[in-house]
Amino acid sequence: MPHRSVAEITDLADRVLAKAGVPAEHAALQRDLLLDAEMRGIASHGLLRLPRLVERIANGVCDPLTKGVQDWTAPGVLKVDGRQGLGPVVAQAALDALAERAATQGVAIAAIANAQHIGMLGFYADRVAEAGKTLIAFSTSEALVHPWGGRRAMIGTNPIAIGMPTGDGIFMMDTATSVISMGEVHDHANRGASLPPGLVLDAEGNPTTDATRGRDGAIAPFGGAKGYALGLAFELLLTALAGSAIGRDVKGTLDSTMPANKADLFILIDTELAPVSAFLELLRAEAPAEGFDGVRIPGERGRALKQKAMDEGLTIADTVWQRLLDLAR
Amino acid sequence: MPHRSVAEITDLADRVLAKAGVPAEHAALQRDLLLDAEMRGIASHGLLRLPRLVERIANGVCDPLTKGVQDWTAPGVLKVDGRQGLGPVVAQAALDALAERAATQGVAIAAIANAQHIGMLGFYADRVAEAGKTLIAFSTSEALVHPWGGRRAMIGTNPIAIGMPTGDGIFMMDTATSVISMGEVHDHANRGASLPPGLVLDAEGNPTTDATRGRDGAIAPFGGAKGYALGLAFELLLTALAGSAIGRDVKGTLDSTMPANKADLFILIDTELAPVSAFLELLRAEAPAEGFDGVRIPGERGRALKQKAMDEGLTIADTVWQRLLDLAR
Repeated sequence: MPHRSVAEITDLADRVLAKAGVPAEHAALQRDLLLDAEMRGIASHGLLRLPRLVERIANGVCDPLTKGVQDWTAPGVLKVDGRQGLGPVVAQAALDALAERAATQGVAIAAIANAQHIGMLGFYADRVAEAGKTLIAFSTSEALVHPWGGRRAMIGTNPIAIGMPTGDGIFMMDTATSVISMGEVHDHANRGASLPPGLVLDAEGNPTTDATRGRDGAIAPFGGAKGYALGLAFELLLTALAGSAIGRDVKGTLDSTMPANKADLFILIDTELAPVSAFLELLRAEAPAEGFDGVRIPGERGRALKQKAMDEGLTIADTVWQRLLDLAR
Repeated sequence: MPHRSVAEITDLADRVLAKAGVPAEHAALQRDLLLDAEMRGIASHGLLRLPRLVERIANGVCDPLTKGVQDWTAPGVLKVDGRQGLGPVVAQAALDALAERAATQGVAIAAIANAQHIGMLGFYADRVAEAGKTLIAFSTSEALVHPWGGRRAMIGTNPIAIGMPTGDGIFMMDTATSVISMGEVHDHANRGASLPPGLVLDAEGNPTTDATRGRDGAIAPFGGAKGYALGLAFELLLTALAGSAIGRDVKGTLDSTMPANKADLFILIDTELAPVSAFLELLRAEAPAEGFDGVRIPGERGRALKQKAMDEGLTIADTVWQRLLDLAR
């Protein structure tokens, strides 16, 4: 896999998006989102997603022109009909509106239905935190996770991200409520690698360590019953607020033909914050447990990888690069 | 352990609180909170906590008269100085203010510092949901949980609860971000029972299954690195919003002499919700995995236990009952 500069990748992604009819302003957001994930080492949410998006535009289930339709149903509550717009375009428009509103209200929330995949939530949490505000972000997804005690996928991977200023920097964490991502299961299957026990069920709902069988089955919630409770709560909360689809009825981020009908939720808080960066310093100075080299602060590994990628470029899988070259032609 | 009726327990708790100088209205809330946990089978958050509270009042680190001081710093943001008031008294006063505000704003948040232990978060999430609104509730606690890769307790058990109407009932989940509670560790130690591997570290930061050693050490975050990230994010968020203490500086819910300086956070949402109860029906009907008798909905076991306790009474540990009888004299 050859090394590419960020400028080279940016240029190719922009050409692919332009060819697909995406206006430059929208293309820049979509490309930034995918490239950000790629640079942070989350390839499953990176440029791999671009060909699918182009197919969705071609199939008429993604509208690259809209920012969605916003409706303030109360001074602090924004409901957004994404109208199948690009995820980061609809999401950023909602965040811009929330930021303006929260500047006077202190807090504002947006429930978004019918947007394309908004990608790695940390992208938004990071940006809001850099702007000096706090964001709690959620999304639902296709059912990939089995309920605790169940046999098949009924619940989304339902991530949460939290971003906030710490006084001399930002804190950002972003985690799915599944124990691993379906991208990692596919990656293991493609490499012929097995998975540790307890991570996936096969199509019949029995435990397996075979990634190819897990691919057709279900992923465990992280942390057992507790992670299940959390993932389910997020699915219920987002679906109820956004009026979107739930469970196995969710479609449109892993296929090329169905409208996207999952939900996204942003809670944006704009108020005075006490500094907490000194506590992060204490954590970094903690003695490491056996088998660890230290206590890590969530988000920092990704931030360091991103900086390295910006300085030195990064490797993109050959198959992905070739596909993008074809799409740019 | 003899069976007691709810009326009998209520009467004794109220006499204890009256003797300690707690006004009837405040006593009713405090007793309801502890009794609710007791009835739901969470004895660690039940009447066990009452003697400590009485000691704290006697020691001047709990003021049973105050509801705290509320300050709306923005139309949607309430900052509360709990002034060492009783947890549920300060919390309920904040929730009442939020409910009134959210009725017009759609969303309002309260960050609370300097209140006593507010108890099981599910108590509040349940009540708000029954009133047709949505609550996301958080608290920090004394440092009892080790950061992932660390050796000693640096982070609170930092629970989250979510309550909401489902269309024909309510959903309520409440979970700590620790893999078990310190109450359960103590319970195992008292019974001479060992713990499964991976749950606690001893005072030197080494893994142990000996509950008596775990009692002096640290509890693991639930779900490893992910639960750590979540618990840490909650600790940073709540501390920054409430301007409260953090990490090992948090005191006042497990001792009888230090002012309580942890944080609590409520996000109350009052907006139209799509019904989601049909999805809970689907989950209940799922085929159980090997070793399970079905898929459970979070909160429902506790709700059933509570109903049973209200109908048939419940058992209170003899030591706790004797202590309460002494305190009522």
